[in-house]
Amino acid sequence: MPTLVLSRHGQSEWNLENRFTGWWDVNLTEQGVQEATAGGKALAEKGFEFDIAFTSVLTRAIKTTNLILEAGKTLWVPTEKDWRLNERHYGGLTGLNKAETAAKHGEEQVHIWRRSYDVPPPPMEKGSKFDLSGDRRYDGVKIPETESLKDTVARVLPYWEERIAPELKAGKRVLIGAHGNSLRALVKHLSKLSDEEIVKFELPTGQPLVYELNDDLTPKDRYFLNER
Amino acid sequence: MPTLVLSRHGQSEWNLENRFTGWWDVNLTEQGVQEATAGGKALAEKGFEFDIAFTSVLTRAIKTTNLILEAGKTLWVPTEKDWRLNERHYGGLTGLNKAETAAKHGEEQVHIWRRSYDVPPPPMEKGSKFDLSGDRRYDGVKIPETESLKDTVARVLPYWEERIAPELKAGKRVLIGAHGNSLRALVKHLSKLSDEEIVKFELPTGQPLVYELNDDLTPKDRYFLNER
Repeated sequence: MPTLVLSRHGQSEWNLENRFTGWWDVNLTEQGVQEATAGGKALAEKGFEFDIAFTSVLTRAIKTTNLILEAGKTLWVPTEKDWRLNERHYGGLTGLNKAETAAKHGEEQVHIWRRSYDVPPPPMEKGSKFDLSGDRRYDGVKIPETESLKDTVARVLPYWEERIAPELKAGKRVLIGAHGNSLRALVKHLSKLSDEEIVKFELPTGQPLVYELNDDLTPKDRYFLNER
Repeated sequence: MPTLVLSRHGQSEWNLENRFTGWWDVNLTEQGVQEATAGGKALAEKGFEFDIAFTSVLTRAIKTTNLILEAGKTLWVPTEKDWRLNERHYGGLTGLNKAETAAKHGEEQVHIWRRSYDVPPPPMEKGSKFDLSGDRRYDGVKIPETESLKDTVARVLPYWEERIAPELKAGKRVLIGAHGNSLRALVKHLSKLSDEEIVKFELPTGQPLVYELNDDLTPKDRYFLNER
């Protein structure tokens, strides 16, 4: 039976400061490191093993994936890193904390950006210090100026179909260490959640979400690891 | 110009205890972690960047590679893990410390095994606690019973030709984080060292060795990072 485990990265420096992070490459905090390790230990204790892992090109997700694998004594598991598993790109909100965003755009507008499926924040301003166009990890990639959750889904799903689904269909046990919104994209697809349902679906940090799948990759069961 | 950096893993728990380790999967010590990070920082400060990394399936080499990449803020670099970059398999010596080995086999014999090119130690005994035949990371791999350095060279070079050399020829800047003897195999090949020369060639832990290569992958220059 194909098994898929989704893990959101542990607490990052900007989770802690309550800043919109998106594609900006911040590190895990010490608590984030501990969350990832604890998640990995819990998986190992419950007998989960992995044959292949996927993660984004952002440090916080890669380290989380590595810490989970290391906790299971399986750091050797092949791991593919791809920008299409990156967090939603928050455009012009990148780097702003909650108070700054509310002061600049108003509470109500911020709520709409956070909780709507298809409304992207304003694009990143030209010359922003968070502009990634010179970052060589994105050579050949059209970096978005901003993304709605819908936009995120639109680039996560082709990667799922192309790289992840074939491994599950081949019987591999798959770990994905990624981000709140790139993982929402997968949950929406697998569990057939509506646009309204997926924006309300919360993935806690460091708490693995398990999918037991049928051979056609429809879900047989879905649960957070601490629920069983 | 193709650039290749070889880094032996930092100090491991069994380096510290002076035990023959080989394919046994021990962790880095805290000093080993610091060595790897220092090597990565030194590389970054001197402007080295990597497009792809290769490592073994042993935790101490994978962590070293990850720490080097992280020190350069490039943990996103694609990284391939393969058993053919593993340390030399020390057969029946695995797990023995210097004193135990000398007591069991005599100082002179131990010197021969350490310092000859083509004399393998005795094979691992049946039922040894260091037997890896049940380890799923080696599914489909014929695990050696023991290896001389010559045997190690014989399985490292096909991997070099198949996976690493093509990346260098395509202009990629390559990092290999591996082990004393799997890296000796590459140094022997690249620098055309004799059997006698290569057994005397010492790779310190945490001190990257740089090869600047011609397009045909013959060496233009070779130096330890701290020599320039």
